[in-house]
Amino acid sequence: MDINVVNALPYEDFVKLFGNVVEKCPLISAAVWSHRPFKDLADIEAHITEFIHRLPDSGKEGILRCHPDLAGRDLQSGTLTRESQEEQSQAGMTTLDSAEFLQMYRLNSEYKEHFGFPFVICARLNNKADIVHQLSERLKNDRATERERAIEEVKKICSLRLRNIVLSEIQTKL
Amino acid sequence: MDINVVNALPYEDFVKLFGNVVEKCPLISAAVWSHRPFKDLADIEAHITEFIHRLPDSGKEGILRCHPDLAGRDLQSGTLTRESQEEQSQAGMTTLDSAEFLQMYRLNSEYKEHFGFPFVICARLNNKADIVHQLSERLKNDRATERERAIEEVKKICSLRLRNIVLSEIQTKL
Repeated sequence: MDINVVNALPYEDFVKLFGNVVEKCPLISAAVWSHRPFKDLADIEAHITEFIHRLPDSGKEGILRCHPDLAGRDLQSGTLTRESQEEQSQAGMTTLDSAEFLQMYRLNSEYKEHFGFPFVICARLNNKADIVHQLSERLKNDRATERERAIEEVKKICSLRLRNIVLSEIQTKL
Repeated sequence: MDINVVNALPYEDFVKLFGNVVEKCPLISAAVWSHRPFKDLADIEAHITEFIHRLPDSGKEGILRCHPDLAGRDLQSGTLTRESQEEQSQAGMTTLDSAEFLQMYRLNSEYKEHFGFPFVICARLNNKADIVHQLSERLKNDRATERERAIEEVKKICSLRLRNIVLSEIQTKL
């Protein structure tokens, strides 16, 4: 994807294309559009990161709360966003046996009760065992540390979603 | 609705209930949940307003860009949110004749081209004639003035949506 093509997009098309690079937060890509022209995709990513970092703690927690649980209610009821569905599927969250499902449910519940936001991890970079391990380990963090830790994962997810959009666009052209 | 009931809601239910008081920006109500317990509904509204005001200009423009056009593409294709559909319908946007529709289309296009965000107005507080008049008038503003003017409308919409949720909840209980 040519960055000049991206820079020429009206905000409506830009938000349609990049609106879910941060899960259910089209506000963020819609805000970043104000910073055109972009040098490249990394520049878009840098503006997204800067926007997130400038948010108050409540705003960062707000971003996390827009994420679904791993192997949670939205996956069961088929209401995940397309991106989350693909990511959770790739990490094996769609093929848990009942014992694994129960374990995820319990750990997610404990985590949410403790922090007031859901456990967020870049599912594309972790398998089932990693996820369970990370969930248990990160439960030991204090809230401020864990908020920042989870936001780092949001940034990884965003980066891969951005790359995926570019890749899809190239494939579409072939 | 008893504020104690609201204060006892897990974030998931809170976001489900209040997630669209700012159009397509669940991030905002999800962020505001961090400030529980709330004194009353006005307190929730005050936290939303404060969150919006602390955003950089790009963030305020981002909020505006999450809004649909009045009598625009989303209305035509039936993809408006439930709240927007009701509001646009009440302001007569669903029953424009072809001349009125063309006029709205031209004014919206000119406005978006000029400011880089859509024309936002609290449709519940304005009829068709008011809307066309305001659109023409506000086109004369500079971008910074108009950004703030439009954010004032976002706050009015938010306030009425909040009140509407409380009213629906009361009616449900009767």
